Amino acid sequence: MLTEFNKTEFDYSYKRRISDLTQEFGSLQREIKALDIPVIIMIEGWEASGKGYIISNLVREVDHNHTVVCEFIEEDHSYRKMPFLWRYWTQTPAKGDIYIYDRSPYYNVMEDYSLSEEKINQYIKHIRTFEDQLADSGVLIFKFFLEISHEHQKENVNRYIDKGKEVLVSQRDLDQIENHGKYRVHFSKILNFPSRISWQIIPAEKRRKAAREILTRLVDQLSQAINDFKYTGQINQSRIPELEDGRKIIEGLDMSKSISKEEYSRRMAKARKELSSLSYEFFLRKGTAVVVFEGVDAAGKGGAIKSLVRELDPRLYRVNPTSAPNQIEKAHHYLWRFWKKLPRRGKMAIFDRSWYGRVLVERLENFADKDEWERSYDEINEFEKVLTDSGILVLKYFINIDKDEQLSRFHARIQVPDKNYKLTSEDWRNRKKWDEYRLAYDDMLTRTSSSYVPWLVVEGNDKGYSRLKIIEDFIEKSKQYLQRRENE
Amino acid sequence: MLTEFNKTEFDYSYKRRISDLTQEFGSLQREIKALDIPVIIMIEGWEASGKGYIISNLVREVDHNHTVVCEFIEEDHSYRKMPFLWRYWTQTPAKGDIYIYDRSPYYNVMEDYSLSEEKINQYIKHIRTFEDQLADSGVLIFKFFLEISHEHQKENVNRYIDKGKEVLVSQRDLDQIENHGKYRVHFSKILNFPSRISWQIIPAEKRRKAAREILTRLVDQLSQAINDFKYTGQINQSRIPELEDGRKIIEGLDMSKSISKEEYSRRMAKARKELSSLSYEFFLRKGTAVVVFEGVDAAGKGGAIKSLVRELDPRLYRVNPTSAPNQIEKAHHYLWRFWKKLPRRGKMAIFDRSWYGRVLVERLENFADKDEWERSYDEINEFEKVLTDSGILVLKYFINIDKDEQLSRFHARIQVPDKNYKLTSEDWRNRKKWDEYRLAYDDMLTRTSSSYVPWLVVEGNDKGYSRLKIIEDFIEKSKQYLQRRENE
Repeated sequence: MLTEFNKTEFDYSYKRRISDLTQEFGSLQREIKALDIPVIIMIEGWEASGKGYIISNLVREVDHNHTVVCEFIEEDHSYRKMPFLWRYWTQTPAKGDIYIYDRSPYYNVMEDYSLSEEKINQYIKHIRTFEDQLADSGVLIFKFFLEISHEHQKENVNRYIDKGKEVLVSQRDLDQIENHGKYRVHFSKILNFPSRISWQIIPAEKRRKAAREILTRLVDQLSQAINDFKYTGQINQSRIPELEDGRKIIEGLDMSKSISKEEYSRRMAKARKELSSLSYEFFLRKGTAVVVFEGVDAAGKGGAIKSLVRELDPRLYRVNPTSAPNQIEKAHHYLWRFWKKLPRRGKMAIFDRSWYGRVLVERLENFADKDEWERSYDEINEFEKVLTDSGILVLKYFINIDKDEQLSRFHARIQVPDKNYKLTSEDWRNRKKWDEYRLAYDDMLTRTSSSYVPWLVVEGNDKGYSRLKIIEDFIEKSKQYLQRRENE
Repeated sequence: MLTEFNKTEFDYSYKRRISDLTQEFGSLQREIKALDIPVIIMIEGWEASGKGYIISNLVREVDHNHTVVCEFIEEDHSYRKMPFLWRYWTQTPAKGDIYIYDRSPYYNVMEDYSLSEEKINQYIKHIRTFEDQLADSGVLIFKFFLEISHEHQKENVNRYIDKGKEVLVSQRDLDQIENHGKYRVHFSKILNFPSRISWQIIPAEKRRKAAREILTRLVDQLSQAINDFKYTGQINQSRIPELEDGRKIIEGLDMSKSISKEEYSRRMAKARKELSSLSYEFFLRKGTAVVVFEGVDAAGKGGAIKSLVRELDPRLYRVNPTSAPNQIEKAHHYLWRFWKKLPRRGKMAIFDRSWYGRVLVERLENFADKDEWERSYDEINEFEKVLTDSGILVLKYFINIDKDEQLSRFHARIQVPDKNYKLTSEDWRNRKKWDEYRLAYDDMLTRTSSSYVPWLVVEGNDKGYSRLKIIEDFIEKSKQYLQRRENE
């Protein structure tokens, strides 16, 4: 019985033929492509509930070049070295593509009924972040759950065995049959969590009926969404965040801070030793870190990165420069390209500029709408929360310099042939927007200094001072982080 | 003693300081970036010979945004589900980037001294293909091998243990120490294989001396290469292949071939059943396939793919459309983007157009130089050989239609709203080059119908006939392939 599930009743007053429905779905897929709408269809359900059959019917008449089936149950476990959402984020559709998920991010919670309440809540929260962020960016998401009874599940599995296809029966199948009751309570809990995109529970004991039902719903709901899109130009109502006013953080900095040569040499020598042993500790404890550098042009991000990595094992870290997104990246959610560059367990990813471009250059150059970049503060906080919850150390450094200091550094770059390449016309263009950038920096520092990942604002007029401040902070935070891991 | 290795003697008449050399290397890296030259530096050697130390010195003064260290010894084995060259191909540098390999593709041969002569030869052949293809496309490759004595290796490993850093000592270290003699013979064999890029054997018992030596050589050889490049506009002398004349294959086709509705229905029904059970067999035997479709516009590639996948489990295959390469893809070897899309073990990748674009559209539109596309026939044959040697079934279908037939299909597309999207101005433009394309097709079919992956040329005026011919061929070849796997 399905009493625990929030099932909707079907209207069987008229039935459409599956072959007609697959045709209709095919036409809608082409319209989706023409309108550049990205779509995710999740097919979840009990083991042996017929997900494969449903998916076969969905792809019957589609353009395979823009419809992709993603299977998330493979035996390969390399993804376990990454935050669990990584393999979903990296397989999100570009504009105009339909991605059909065999399983879904919920699989990670569903597969283990013994998870603690706290762990379940954390998973669900992260998955809702995933769904919300994609939906806000205009991805159309459908969630289906195939429901079968205990009896029926046993029958399906036995049928495989009778046919001599034991190889298709997995440990998961047997486990669900043995503990059907426990799984049922567990699933029910998960499916009833409130979320923006609700689950559509589909009785799947009769496969053809289930396929017809899902196709009917998809055809109707897709048509509706396409109509809405044509009238309103959008797929979903996006979140409208309440934004805290940006405090004037940069204005309050004491930009005269500096350090004597002697003190710099003394403290840097000590720091270098510590960095070198930290490198070993990171390796030992499989520490994973994401380090972000932001700052105005010529603030010294590159130099700071160089002095930071100097004593680290070059196999430990990778530096990721961030420039304008390419065509394919533009067709995805703006966080997608950063998800792809996350470090695997035991590695460190350093970002020379980062996802904060969303609220800096994209804001100032109008590459993102006001609604979009305003929403991004929340999205970025959520993203960094997901990372820290996954056991990653996230550090953020913002280096500030004076307008005069920038000018003299620009001039210095012109004169030194080896640094010439660093100066581009864009630098001069950005300089003209100095005040606007300052406003955007203040907003960023105010709205994304979370308790779990605060910004370190660095006074950068004196290069020695700023490098040392960053490195000493890095050492301190890393030690705390590695200590926490040791205790866990 | 190094008697077995083909060692070059050093000239120590003048010594440069490491700090100066790292500076010089840093400047050269920036020049490399400015000149858009891609570079690979492989650091191979005995276990515990100090590869990490060397690499740390190499990256001391570089721009980390364009210098990437790739470690290939990780414990993660997900790459084993792919052809062994996959993880190297997917980590080749874009133009202007330097990739430093900790280890190299040779690692797969080196790590096992008990490999048969035949297996070693196959590995080496594939690695040389990798090196040749990259070098031909203008990648600058350096290969260093760090040589230490048995005694010294033992000392290094013991030093770790004495320091309480046993965790840094791997099973590989101990194995090499135990079987040093066997490894020495094995390495010597591998290092002495003739190849276009020779190994530079570096005595590494003194780490600083080894670092200085490698830096000196890199600085000198890079400067030389940059000079050559400035004068000649190229990095390497590329292969100039001897090309067989294209036979007139298309002219000889009987384009009137067709099939009656009754026979089509009968044979297709049978084929569908077989496809469906093949899907299961592929899953069972972890069969891996790459299926290529080429043909003039409107030849029916899409329809053929659709009817082929209709009975396959949608989780088994993925269809990859091939359009013009994007900016990042253009900065890499033309095969790079296809390497990235290879199927993992147990999966099937279908290509709607493919790497053959190199000798078709890129040839006709002058996107590739004559030298480049003429070389590609060999490169493609080598590529497909690597795939088949890795246990992948590769199938290639070329569908031909008459010029009149194409026109009437174009007109039909205009009239059917649902097919309208398929017709673009490019189709009409290509049609004007009908005769040139025919020549290019004949050349392609002649030069890349290898014994291991022959083309199946399909007469496509009658859609039923062509689809059936492809599907029946697919079934036959798949059965043979799965049979071979079963016997192995």
